[in-house]
Amino acid sequence: MTGPLITFLSDYGLDDEFAGVCHAVIAGICPDARVVDLTHGIPRHDVMAGALVLHSALPYLPRGIHLAVVDPDVGAERRAVAIRSADDRMLVGPDNGLLSLAAQAAGGVVEAVDIARSPFRLEPVSATFHGRDIFAPVAARLAGGAGLAEAGEPLDPGELVSLELPRPRFADGTVIARAVYIDRFGNVQLGVEHDELVDTGLKLGRAVELELGTRTKHEAHFALTFADVEPDQLLVYEDAQRRLAVAVSHGSAATRLGISVDDELRITPK
Amino acid sequence: MTGPLITFLSDYGLDDEFAGVCHAVIAGICPDARVVDLTHGIPRHDVMAGALVLHSALPYLPRGIHLAVVDPDVGAERRAVAIRSADDRMLVGPDNGLLSLAAQAAGGVVEAVDIARSPFRLEPVSATFHGRDIFAPVAARLAGGAGLAEAGEPLDPGELVSLELPRPRFADGTVIARAVYIDRFGNVQLGVEHDELVDTGLKLGRAVELELGTRTKHEAHFALTFADVEPDQLLVYEDAQRRLAVAVSHGSAATRLGISVDDELRITPK
Amino acid sequence: MTGPLITFLSDYGLDDEFAGVCHAVIAGICPDARVVDLTHGIPRHDVMAGALVLHSALPYLPRGIHLAVVDPDVGAERRAVAIRSADDRMLVGPDNGLLSLAAQAAGGVVEAVDIARSPFRLEPVSATFHGRDIFAPVAARLAGGAGLAEAGEPLDPGELVSLELPRPRFADGTVIARAVYIDRFGNVQLGVEHDELVDTGLKLGRAVELELGTRTKHEAHFALTFADVEPDQLLVYEDAQRRLAVAVSHGSAATRLGISVDDELRITPK
Repeated sequence: MTGPLITFLSDYGLDDEFAGVCHAVIAGICPDARVVDLTHGIPRHDVMAGALVLHSALPYLPRGIHLAVVDPDVGAERRAVAIRSADDRMLVGPDNGLLSLAAQAAGGVVEAVDIARSPFRLEPVSATFHGRDIFAPVAARLAGGAGLAEAGEPLDPGELVSLELPRPRFADGTVIARAVYIDRFGNVQLGVEHDELVDTGLKLGRAVELELGTRTKHEAHFALTFADVEPDQLLVYEDAQRRLAVAVSHGSAATRLGISVDDELRITPK
Repeated sequence: MTGPLITFLSDYGLDDEFAGVCHAVIAGICPDARVVDLTHGIPRHDVMAGALVLHSALPYLPRGIHLAVVDPDVGAERRAVAIRSADDRMLVGPDNGLLSLAAQAAGGVVEAVDIARSPFRLEPVSATFHGRDIFAPVAARLAGGAGLAEAGEPLDPGELVSLELPRPRFADGTVIARAVYIDRFGNVQLGVEHDELVDTGLKLGRAVELELGTRTKHEAHFALTFADVEPDQLLVYEDAQRRLAVAVSHGSAATRLGISVDDELRITPK
Repeated sequence: MTGPLITFLSDYGLDDEFAGVCHAVIAGICPDARVVDLTHGIPRHDVMAGALVLHSALPYLPRGIHLAVVDPDVGAERRAVAIRSADDRMLVGPDNGLLSLAAQAAGGVVEAVDIARSPFRLEPVSATFHGRDIFAPVAARLAGGAGLAEAGEPLDPGELVSLELPRPRFADGTVIARAVYIDRFGNVQLGVEHDELVDTGLKLGRAVELELGTRTKHEAHFALTFADVEPDQLLVYEDAQRRLAVAVSHGSAATRLGISVDDELRITPK
């Protein structure tokens, strides 16, 4: 017999015991739950990065409880929520948009509760560590079979905070898109998804010009994979999350371009 | 059916395979044990930091086997021990004080054995990796149901090495306390516990003055949580481990104050 | 009942969700598999480091599925393989030598399949994330009981890419060896194994001279363990993987010597 699955994403890092203590709390409440750490390396307080990573990972996550904590306003007025999606996933976390991209991809929210005063929370609730005191215990109780309605007060799904994915713009054949995520290899993910790629006019194997603000222009190739260009060359490609991305083969595109998340990049076929 | 729980804390980091190999050793000896990593990010050789983290986490850990390895003197004369606390937890690690704060909080030690020559250890025992060769196998055998007396030679609990938590001093309304732990967000935990806070004269919402040695004085507020002050402002608060702490909202107090572990901070209500 | 064991090593790091998503994929396919992370901290693209770590860890890994992904040429012509060793372990990863040192230590390869077009892979297969789309699903299906022959096309084991461990040279009592791995503590592992140590003429407790290229010479002691020398002193010792190594007690030998992986070190008894 296999226990229920909880996936866990946060900005806690692994240097401190924050994520580990949440694991311990879950093990105490629902000993047969299996917890998969998606990552605890979301940049501190970066709700958009957390939302994007959860959204990208979702198609690969078995249906279960998805616990996510990136919570810059812990202790303030933001709501704490547990929600059920149309495809019967449960998401637990702060109501700051962190869950919203994944919830949309899961068919939208069909039920939501405010868990700030959940009967499942640990007392006394600290002012700064709701992962341990509210989110992990609620996730564990849901994994153990509790119903969403038992976890908190009903909430109109329409009231939940929503993030929007940045959308690309198209002008005279040029694609203008924002950097939405940079991974530890320096690969730069842009706000252009698979279905939007059709409109870009980019053609496999063709050269493109990259322009960041008014800085120097860079030449790159639109390629299928890193191996299609020489080491140290720039490539534009569809990444494993099916978004448009920029990389340097055996190097870092973020360093090469001097690009940060939110910066706008112009891509023009040559 | 749920297997026994082992929690695991160390200074091994995750860049190397040290923690992973200990997991593998445990899986080989007690395949149904569930291992929860508290953290492997204790600063190298920092026994006090490891002891504090284990002590802080303890109330949130289900009763089980608590494996901890921060072991600067591995291979030297220090003892290797397994102990049972009054509340029936088992702690396994080097006898250098690492286990002592948690053991005190668990009601004290009621049984102890020296496991340096434990029949459970892996042969040949290396001179430098007792986590793999002694501590993990002993923890796994205890998880599998072995008695403490089988794990090693009986030892008088009074002989175990003990650490003391730093205590605050009070002078003319000023609290003088040491920094005991700094987390990855730069939040500075002080050696003042919940019950001692009563004596500090600090009042919620009131301004305080922070003084580190003879350096510039800083103004802060005694607040319930980060959200009670503006971004970039200093606050003094009771943290999630119920100790007095200093933080910068959306920033790093450690950087702002230039404070390190063991530094003495003076806090004066204004 | 205990599920099958999968060990997992990669250069994905833990800052991003790559390793976590592979865990989720495995949990979806084989929910009762237990996954032990050896490490995800192999330096990016460092196939030799990954091969050495897997080789060193192998004696401590229960027989199972050993998943390893350090894959600089993902998307290019390199094969993806699953192999069975003489001692009945399964290894899954890219065919770039990463698995070869462990496979040799496991008695050699008795069966191999090319899994690039495995029926177990996830569709669509991305060009850059074969860990998620090929290696993890294949490992999970093998853990679930599938036979190797079902996982891919038969392959002559003699065609697999093989790495060689660097061997030491001996000249006039001097040992000349390469640095093969440097851990996070700055301990430097050399390409000299336990059985070759006999030939080195090094004697416990005796002084040796270390020489790196034409740089300044350093004095060290051949010792059993760190505790045998004073803090900050250099020692040469047999490490926990039973290889010759250089360390600084309570310090970093890599920093002290200015040595990098592949650098050649000369060790002369004095």
